[in-house]
Amino acid sequence: LNLELINTGSELMLGRVLNTHQQWLCRQLTALGYEVARQVTVGDTALAIQAAVCAALAEADVIIVTGGLGPTADDRTREVIAALLGRRLVLDGTVLAAIERFYAARGRPVLESTKAQAMVPEGGIVLPNSVGTAPGLIIEAAPNPWRPAQRPSLLVMLPGPPRELYPMFAAQVAPLLQKKFPPESVYASRVLKTTGLGESMIEERIAGALASLTKNGLDLGYCARVGEVEIRLSARGSAAQEMVGQAAQIVCDRLGPCIFATNDESLETVVVRLLTERRQTLAIAESCTGGYIAHRITNVSGASAVFLGGWVTYSNEAKQRFLGVPEEIIAAHGAVSEPTARAMAEGARRQQGADYALAVTGIAGPTGGTTAKPVGTVYIALATAEGIRLQHQVNHFDRENFKQATAQQALELLRQTLISSYK
Amino acid sequence: LNLELINTGSELMLGRVLNTHQQWLCRQLTALGYEVARQVTVGDTALAIQAAVCAALAEADVIIVTGGLGPTADDRTREVIAALLGRRLVLDGTVLAAIERFYAARGRPVLESTKAQAMVPEGGIVLPNSVGTAPGLIIEAAPNPWRPAQRPSLLVMLPGPPRELYPMFAAQVAPLLQKKFPPESVYASRVLKTTGLGESMIEERIAGALASLTKNGLDLGYCARVGEVEIRLSARGSAAQEMVGQAAQIVCDRLGPCIFATNDESLETVVVRLLTERRQTLAIAESCTGGYIAHRITNVSGASAVFLGGWVTYSNEAKQRFLGVPEEIIAAHGAVSEPTARAMAEGARRQQGADYALAVTGIAGPTGGTTAKPVGTVYIALATAEGIRLQHQVNHFDRENFKQATAQQALELLRQTLISSYK
Repeated sequence: LNLELINTGSELMLGRVLNTHQQWLCRQLTALGYEVARQVTVGDTALAIQAAVCAALAEADVIIVTGGLGPTADDRTREVIAALLGRRLVLDGTVLAAIERFYAARGRPVLESTKAQAMVPEGGIVLPNSVGTAPGLIIEAAPNPWRPAQRPSLLVMLPGPPRELYPMFAAQVAPLLQKKFPPESVYASRVLKTTGLGESMIEERIAGALASLTKNGLDLGYCARVGEVEIRLSARGSAAQEMVGQAAQIVCDRLGPCIFATNDESLETVVVRLLTERRQTLAIAESCTGGYIAHRITNVSGASAVFLGGWVTYSNEAKQRFLGVPEEIIAAHGAVSEPTARAMAEGARRQQGADYALAVTGIAGPTGGTTAKPVGTVYIALATAEGIRLQHQVNHFDRENFKQATAQQALELLRQTLISSYK
Repeated sequence: LNLELINTGSELMLGRVLNTHQQWLCRQLTALGYEVARQVTVGDTALAIQAAVCAALAEADVIIVTGGLGPTADDRTREVIAALLGRRLVLDGTVLAAIERFYAARGRPVLESTKAQAMVPEGGIVLPNSVGTAPGLIIEAAPNPWRPAQRPSLLVMLPGPPRELYPMFAAQVAPLLQKKFPPESVYASRVLKTTGLGESMIEERIAGALASLTKNGLDLGYCARVGEVEIRLSARGSAAQEMVGQAAQIVCDRLGPCIFATNDESLETVVVRLLTERRQTLAIAESCTGGYIAHRITNVSGASAVFLGGWVTYSNEAKQRFLGVPEEIIAAHGAVSEPTARAMAEGARRQQGADYALAVTGIAGPTGGTTAKPVGTVYIALATAEGIRLQHQVNHFDRENFKQATAQQALELLRQTLISSYK
């Protein structure tokens, strides 16, 4: 099955917006057993949309187009595709009634422009929108005279806002695709997530051991991010599941505790799960990460059972008053120092009565560095019932990536402590 | 100038990774005065990269390809493009020496696979990598026999890791493009950011007033995100600057204080700037947003001058002990209530001696809702020297978007208070 995504939106071409649709749809389609062959983004002009759809019609069996179904004048997808496929737009009474109900429930008037969303291409399938006003649309293109042996392309148009697109795809498009195009071959894939090792180093450790499997069709990929490398193992065909399982075993044997997830879990999800299993609690005291570690922990549903609370102590005074860091320690060693990190962690653990307390203090930059403590310097401390664990890093990154790298190291320190206390 | 981006990476097609390169490069190119006509993503297979580059060669004057220059076996861009353009790969001594220096400085051995990055296509321009090992490459394709009137395409290959790509593009590629292809026409654009109004409502208020300008070539676009709508005004040609300026004036007149930025500033940047101008300080007490508001504030460089500190008080006990919320208030009204939000803000302001304290308490979900207080319920309080400002919202979103929407409302409450205290 040749599958292509077209994301429309001038805001994408101007770089105003991140294209999160691509990731989300690719992930869903992969999970359903399909491969996305190609993804294209074009601006909101009729010509660009037309050219992209024409090119896709020559290749793809299924074309998923996102965006441009809304009420404003820069929403042109519906019109352009209807014209390209020679379909008239007609008013759909059911859609119009749904739009009117949507606004009535919110006590707002139906604007004239909003009604344009009730115009649908003749013969198209309407996908009701459960959370917004723009319905999705599906049209089966006429057979392509240039490649008559091929099946006609199926054009799926979905609204741009993620909270409308996601449920519409999951509840309506996915089942339809599964029915119309049962995945041709078994596809198996597995992602192992690591932290603490570089990409080359990981390949050096595992590629040789996986060579016989890669020769037999195992696909091995790496993706490096700040503080994290993903190893992607995938295969197609009847032996896919077995092959991927064998490969995962080899990687786990070679990399051991550097692997923090063998599924899709984030590092914070793993940490919350481990704490939940042990019925243990966590407090966090942050200086340079400014609340980011607490934010990641509280992104995990169920975090409230293990996370007691946190401080963002940006000033020296806050470190002293709220965490009980002795003034002399800051005076003697500075706010960015191992003794301060230790005192922050111990203070946080004591104050909250938590099993574990993580503390970080460092220099996020771009200013504030010195020769002895350059921008990027960070001290991490983890206070536990058994004592304190300390770590010192220099994370050479810009402000945001510095926070990311530091949070990874802090969460990993906690994870390593949790898994080793198992034994 | 016809400009196309090709992002390679199977991790992108599998949805493992967000394509942040597209946004970053599109933003840079727009700022340089270019329009990106098309962006394509393909997997790491030789065939897919080849097909994408071939298609681009038929249309584009400049093709920027990202990814696939690294050391691992799934890095194929260099090889595929060299083969496609009929160039041999030769060992570049300067690049090899740079790689060896890079590893020597880190006390790590040069792996054999890493040396592949010193192979460069004959006749290509090498772009040294200041922070990593893979150099960028530029090749001028031979004139296209199918369109001899056109100039030959310029192929720019850049490494995938953002921290290598960004400085390489800014320091080496941008100046080269500007020299070789001076932007053909004046391009002016302006983004006005709003919060508190929906997209249709904004269009209803401004589209009529802008009609004569849009008829004369003004491009008007909208981009709705959680808690934020961007209005994009742009034009080309000699009158572009004036036209966009006029349009911005009209929009500002119609929407007034709903506009929080007339440039690229984020809401948190605006808030930090306003506080800095007034030499005033901020404390934050967060329950349901779990540190996200503090994280956003501390993403702004210079935040330490105005942000004193914050609490993430997830438990009732933490709200009482650290913020001094009276037990009776929580008992009588619940942790998610207006009186609790008020007491949190007042406690935070008192404890930190801050000019302003923001507090939020709510139910992020997916569990924890009741009929009286459904998932999404949030109370926001802002304590100031003049008294307290309160806000109650129900944000119907998933956990992450709930945090986003709530943070927008809290920061906007603070911004509105800051700008009205001006007068």
